[in-house]
Amino acid sequence: MFQLRSLVTALALLGSISIANAWEVLPTQAPQPLDNPSTPEKIELGKMLYHDPRLSSTGTVSCASCHNTMLGGEDNRANSMGVQAELGGRSAPTVWNSAFNKVQFWDGRAATLEEQAAGPVTSPVEMGMKNWDEVVARLKSISGYEKAFKDVYGENTISKDNATKAIAAYERTLITPNSPYDKFVGGDKSALSTQQIRGMEKVAELGCTSCHSGSAFNGAGTFQKFPMIADGYLEAKFHFTKDKGVAEVSKKAEDEHFWKVPTLRNVALTAPYFHNGSVATLDEAVKIMAKTQLNKELAKDEVANIVAFLNGLTGEFPKQTMPTLPPTFGKTVN
Amino acid sequence: MFQLRSLVTALALLGSISIANAWEVLPTQAPQPLDNPSTPEKIELGKMLYHDPRLSSTGTVSCASCHNTMLGGEDNRANSMGVQAELGGRSAPTVWNSAFNKVQFWDGRAATLEEQAAGPVTSPVEMGMKNWDEVVARLKSISGYEKAFKDVYGENTISKDNATKAIAAYERTLITPNSPYDKFVGGDKSALSTQQIRGMEKVAELGCTSCHSGSAFNGAGTFQKFPMIADGYLEAKFHFTKDKGVAEVSKKAEDEHFWKVPTLRNVALTAPYFHNGSVATLDEAVKIMAKTQLNKELAKDEVANIVAFLNGLTGEFPKQTMPTLPPTFGKTVN
Repeated sequence: MFQLRSLVTALALLGSISIANAWEVLPTQAPQPLDNPSTPEKIELGKMLYHDPRLSSTGTVSCASCHNTMLGGEDNRANSMGVQAELGGRSAPTVWNSAFNKVQFWDGRAATLEEQAAGPVTSPVEMGMKNWDEVVARLKSISGYEKAFKDVYGENTISKDNATKAIAAYERTLITPNSPYDKFVGGDKSALSTQQIRGMEKVAELGCTSCHSGSAFNGAGTFQKFPMIADGYLEAKFHFTKDKGVAEVSKKAEDEHFWKVPTLRNVALTAPYFHNGSVATLDEAVKIMAKTQLNKELAKDEVANIVAFLNGLTGEFPKQTMPTLPPTFGKTVN
Repeated sequence: MFQLRSLVTALALLGSISIANAWEVLPTQAPQPLDNPSTPEKIELGKMLYHDPRLSSTGTVSCASCHNTMLGGEDNRANSMGVQAELGGRSAPTVWNSAFNKVQFWDGRAATLEEQAAGPVTSPVEMGMKNWDEVVARLKSISGYEKAFKDVYGENTISKDNATKAIAAYERTLITPNSPYDKFVGGDKSALSTQQIRGMEKVAELGCTSCHSGSAFNGAGTFQKFPMIADGYLEAKFHFTKDKGVAEVSKKAEDEHFWKVPTLRNVALTAPYFHNGSVATLDEAVKIMAKTQLNKELAKDEVANIVAFLNGLTGEFPKQTMPTLPPTFGKTVN
């Protein structure tokens, strides 16, 4: 999985990248897996499930609680808060444009949106269901879901597989195109300010985009070490290395402190930053990235220019209808 | 406030009401207070605030968390769960058609939707903000709210008063007309089944509608004692009298166990039942009401007919667009 990372990291460290930066516009359609083609009914079912707090043990936490589709796709918290006010160990990544991630979760342990969707539901610190059998039983107890699954998959089709497929199909619609950056790259040279263009040039020059590459600025599923360069002051303040990242899953020493490259799309909306949400502002996050990944001390105006550019990655959020969730008839949820 | 209650209660206890039951259709527009006229911009601002978890100390609980507009306007829990998983003492009433309540909260301690909206935000077991100064400061820190308030009220107008007015204006749009009952009363005699019509007649005959009166079946702001008739078995099982209702606020002995008459609109969707959410099914709730309020033991088919009728009070839920909340720029919420 991580064969390319040393090469990519080495390239990133060159600082000045010689290959021309290929600025890409965000696609307006996400790729669909062959075994999960999207249909309007499936997307609508997925939207219902995604927003339904009854997928949690207490009936209070939905996918949207931590990955808020009315906001930047997450919760603006350092650590998300699950059932019974349990705290997760990492900062919730944004759901917007997650369809363009090649791997999911901070440690990339899920290969697909479908696989990712199954996880938090049964995590004790997130949605707290005992297992998927319990989830399926609860969904079966809600007659409206029987019908909604039937419309998509046929009779008696409520299952973990079909539920997570529907959620993933919905998530593939959560795309934010037409950011000022996209308009600029598409030919509208007035879409970015002079300051933003300076920031864009600096981002390429520094090599930020050798990791944050591709249309979603997410490295197309690559992993990087963070922090690359140890810094006692930053570590004492932000505890970046407490969490071993990919190694927490793989248990391999060589995977320690490796992380999925997160998207920079809508990054201005998704404070606080880094896997542990320890850094509150985008200014500081930019400074830290330059220091820990590229061994550069950025000047104040360089930071300001880069932050201005990153604000230009905020896209257009599609207007959505609010789902009407099938009712719990005549019983209590918890 | 409670002058009429003895008379109304006495009438209810007659069992068979001699005055003809005036079946009323739910209005499609809610009355607006003179000092808070609704405008599209105000309603939209109110919708944003209503769905914004940043109105809570942890950034995880919005008005919609307990009064879910994607469901029956509440959370299907016995007690709602606020910040830090704190439990409220009463079952969340539905927000749907709350515009037709003459008083708000189970104990009627708020006279208006505006007054009601101010409460949960600073309740330690609900949204947990220290005070409204803190709420206002947080809203002011979100630049999109500066603009949204300006569009409704003018420059520098973020305040408790304006925020709660906007929320109330939004809530006045949460109306569910065209239930089978409404269609039936409006002239479509096929809108209710024979069983439902039998239930409707029984409801009038028993006197349920002498308290659950008016178009919203909520007694137009009247209060009733519950339980009227002490029952050792029910008390041991459901602890109805642990909470003294209106007397918890007024501290007057004569107000003990008095409660606002709750709406029966959409009651099939709002299990569990009663102020403490102790009764899971509508069947049992109907039996208990007959027993404790009217001293009647209902036959099984009478209960079934009444429950069928109550299901006919489920209205049409308007399609809503999902609000896009103004982002938290470059900082963490908690």
